Amino acid sequence: MTSTFDPVFVALGGAGEIGMNLYAYGYGPERDRRWIVVDVGVTFPEEGKHPGVDLIFADVAFLEKQADRIDGIFITHAHEDHVGALPRLAERLGTAPIYARAFTSEIARLKLSESDTSEGRVKTVGAWPETVQAGSFSVGFFPISHSIPESSMLVIDTPAGRILHTGDWKADPTPLVGEPFDPEGIKTLSKDGVLALVCDSTNIFSGNPGRSEADIVTPIEELMRNEPGMIVATTFASNIARLRTLAQAATKAERSVVVIGRAMHRMISTARKVGLLTDFPDILDARDAEGIPAEHLFVLASGSQGEGRAASAQLARGGYGRLSLKDGDVFLFSSKTIPGNEVAVADIQNLLAQQGVRVVDDAGGLYHVSGHANRPDLLAMHKLVNPRGLVPMHGEYRHLAEHARAAEQHGIASVVAPNGTLVALTADGPQLVEHIDTGRLYLDGTQVYGAMDGIVRERLRMSWRGHVVVNLVFDERDALMGDAWVETRGLFTDLDGEEGALQAKLEQVVTDALGSAKRGQRSDDAQVEKLVLGRINTTCQQLLGKKPEITVMINRID
Amino acid sequence: MTSTFDPVFVALGGAGEIGMNLYAYGYGPERDRRWIVVDVGVTFPEEGKHPGVDLIFADVAFLEKQADRIDGIFITHAHEDHVGALPRLAERLGTAPIYARAFTSEIARLKLSESDTSEGRVKTVGAWPETVQAGSFSVGFFPISHSIPESSMLVIDTPAGRILHTGDWKADPTPLVGEPFDPEGIKTLSKDGVLALVCDSTNIFSGNPGRSEADIVTPIEELMRNEPGMIVATTFASNIARLRTLAQAATKAERSVVVIGRAMHRMISTARKVGLLTDFPDILDARDAEGIPAEHLFVLASGSQGEGRAASAQLARGGYGRLSLKDGDVFLFSSKTIPGNEVAVADIQNLLAQQGVRVVDDAGGLYHVSGHANRPDLLAMHKLVNPRGLVPMHGEYRHLAEHARAAEQHGIASVVAPNGTLVALTADGPQLVEHIDTGRLYLDGTQVYGAMDGIVRERLRMSWRGHVVVNLVFDERDALMGDAWVETRGLFTDLDGEEGALQAKLEQVVTDALGSAKRGQRSDDAQVEKLVLGRINTTCQQLLGKKPEITVMINRID
Repeated sequence: MTSTFDPVFVALGGAGEIGMNLYAYGYGPERDRRWIVVDVGVTFPEEGKHPGVDLIFADVAFLEKQADRIDGIFITHAHEDHVGALPRLAERLGTAPIYARAFTSEIARLKLSESDTSEGRVKTVGAWPETVQAGSFSVGFFPISHSIPESSMLVIDTPAGRILHTGDWKADPTPLVGEPFDPEGIKTLSKDGVLALVCDSTNIFSGNPGRSEADIVTPIEELMRNEPGMIVATTFASNIARLRTLAQAATKAERSVVVIGRAMHRMISTARKVGLLTDFPDILDARDAEGIPAEHLFVLASGSQGEGRAASAQLARGGYGRLSLKDGDVFLFSSKTIPGNEVAVADIQNLLAQQGVRVVDDAGGLYHVSGHANRPDLLAMHKLVNPRGLVPMHGEYRHLAEHARAAEQHGIASVVAPNGTLVALTADGPQLVEHIDTGRLYLDGTQVYGAMDGIVRERLRMSWRGHVVVNLVFDERDALMGDAWVETRGLFTDLDGEEGALQAKLEQVVTDALGSAKRGQRSDDAQVEKLVLGRINTTCQQLLGKKPEITVMINRID
Repeated sequence: MTSTFDPVFVALGGAGEIGMNLYAYGYGPERDRRWIVVDVGVTFPEEGKHPGVDLIFADVAFLEKQADRIDGIFITHAHEDHVGALPRLAERLGTAPIYARAFTSEIARLKLSESDTSEGRVKTVGAWPETVQAGSFSVGFFPISHSIPESSMLVIDTPAGRILHTGDWKADPTPLVGEPFDPEGIKTLSKDGVLALVCDSTNIFSGNPGRSEADIVTPIEELMRNEPGMIVATTFASNIARLRTLAQAATKAERSVVVIGRAMHRMISTARKVGLLTDFPDILDARDAEGIPAEHLFVLASGSQGEGRAASAQLARGGYGRLSLKDGDVFLFSSKTIPGNEVAVADIQNLLAQQGVRVVDDAGGLYHVSGHANRPDLLAMHKLVNPRGLVPMHGEYRHLAEHARAAEQHGIASVVAPNGTLVALTADGPQLVEHIDTGRLYLDGTQVYGAMDGIVRERLRMSWRGHVVVNLVFDERDALMGDAWVETRGLFTDLDGEEGALQAKLEQVVTDALGSAKRGQRSDDAQVEKLVLGRINTTCQQLLGKKPEITVMINRID
């Protein structure tokens, strides 16, 4: 018997939030530990928190420092929050191959084609029992149902034992596209003991067992058949099974299928390319839809989350190309609204209502099922695997905590390990080892910077308080030349109905203050700035009831 | 028989949105029409849409111009979105009395005490059959159940017939505090014919009949009894019945009741003052809670919507005064999360989970019921009243449209009349007459300005794009003195790891451009500005992938 190490697990993203999944498993002595990375996802900025930010991903500094010891990157499935940061982070994570199944590989390559990383770095792997050797790890992709094809639970074998990393999953016996949930297979995988089950937690608070993708086929078919007008449906473009159900139901109801939105076209063609979508009906070009009566049209549109530029939003604002909606048409949100997007989605729905369009959403549970395992499904998984320990992943803190609590209630050792918590996966259950520095990176235009760099905080302060710029010119005797000059942005300036009254008042206050200041004070930039900041703040507080952000620019003529 | 006019109805707020209710009814010839105003509510800014704005209310310019023809202001109930704008708008709406029932009057007076409007303007009115004569209108407050005491349906009699204005309502036979829903009374009110039913629409998409406040008493009692730790609950402070249910259940479970948060204290004392809350248990001062074991404590905390400064948020961040939570305590959200607040509420819940606190919310429907009528209740109301026409109010456009559709399906004439749509309430049903200008006003610090004034738009642009300020000094020969000086806010400046590299680059680009410009160009401010804007935009696009907001300040030394 050779001596072994306890494998370690750490989340750099995805544990303590929904989205931005990025996990790593390590094996070996700490100073020479070898790593594999699981998923490299993004999260999306929130309107009021991240102005000007385009995308958010995990700060991988911890792994970057030991990138030469990363032996593989494994992508469980092709959702943005699992694959979306590859173009930005792949280089930082060294040069190890990126492994994924066929559909995910295609999506990963499409993403990398827009970056400096070679698409050739992505290696397509077949389903379990095929495995990849990556350092001390042997990794296989065991098919598991989710809301995208070819989602996989990773079977990670180490010298110390087996780890099952579920990825995102649900217990769906009939997912319609891709492989069904296979409890017997999971039992077989687990029969010799599992060191740790690292498991999706997002739906731990949903008390009913999850429903199957097949459950919504009939309601969708009825809707397609019974509505007298055009039907538009939106959903996540990557939900290939849903696209297929919608399109097939439309065809049955003698509706031509039009697809609008780049994301939809890309996903459909990728699924076709890898052979996942052999029975999708012919797609009619949007330009050829004009002559067709509304009751014979079905439109599949991207933008289920209220994205302002997506096809759904364009239709809501009046039309997409020549395609437009009218009184009596139906718009189906075959999707869940992600928390934070409620208002954006409602805005779209209100615009649609203004056109007389009837909006149907998932409120009744008829037209959408979740892609994640609910509480009873999670407990069933715990039972199937019966691991030495459970590490909840993918969830906000409250989800992780509740998932751990549920496991422990059923006698499985667990630990709450938010981003940055290094956990040893021991035969006695998961043990906290240490905390490592983690954080978030912001993509803003073409630049990437840290969440803690203060840039976004500066923007938020300007947006709450406005920005006052004071321009001063002093002559060689340190006397103010002319008056102070004040410009403002984002401040109400027309006091008592008088245009620009605020600037005029501020200029006068600053000019007066500098006029009565001593030369020693005027000659010193720091003192001038202090004086000006004080006067501007006091005056704005008096006139506006709040203090602005202030920039003082002092010019001296020698 | 004297000739009559068709009464008119117009929403200045509340129709096309949830919140900010402000309606007016007019009677008489257009140029000499007399008005009554119903509700004067606020709405709250959204994080990503209204940075720096404290409150939002309706632009009442249309009514302000004819304020001398307003004969009364009627407040249906004391929720912020019905009464909250009184301190800011009462003066603009002339000098007519403000009528409300006792509890609402107290709240209205408390609000006015912080404004220039005299509290004496508020007149307390008893419930129907008491009525107030206001010009051509006779108005009575018919009690109707809602999530606050003394909510009223207004019975508005005009020479042309009766109008029923429901206010916010639900069909609750056992609201626990305040009068039960009274279908027989409404039938009696309606027996001689109703010209128009103007009706709450917020829950038109909820398909099941609403539940009673009494339905949640037992689950709450069980929770109080069975939990071994401290229980904290939050809900809307104005939901007096809920506060009473929670406090009484706590007392039964031998828990002392602590109340934290100004809003809670204010509402409880107001309800007591007007005799609505005679059986609320004694309140323990938070400072005296220290010695009491957790299982004997119950804390009622304000801040159910995730408000950052409220008592709930303080507890989540570590403590309120000396009161703090620990592993095993329970935090109950006996409330619904208003759309737009989901992320703020989840943030609080995650902080609580980090302290080991179990969060219980309304997901299971055990601990909260809505205060609004669901679709079946709305249809039942239509049937009870059988009006000549239905005008849906209080709802986003989609709610109004669906409510109108539902009415018409059952043979009642209806119209969708969002804010600014003047509707004649005729015997043949409601008819669109004209559109009047409406809008929103922003309260920002102490100033009030229009939503269209562009100030918030300026802030948003700065927050998305950052702000570059360029300072130039030209000598008497129009030559640049020294270099251009650039300051930035909200921009990433440390290009390639070099601190301030962006400013340096921008200064060089602008200095070079001005250096090679002709004197005629340099002597003209407009041409200088155009040149500088162009260079800054081009350079930022190259270096950052985006264009900033820019302010150019040109100083000339003569």
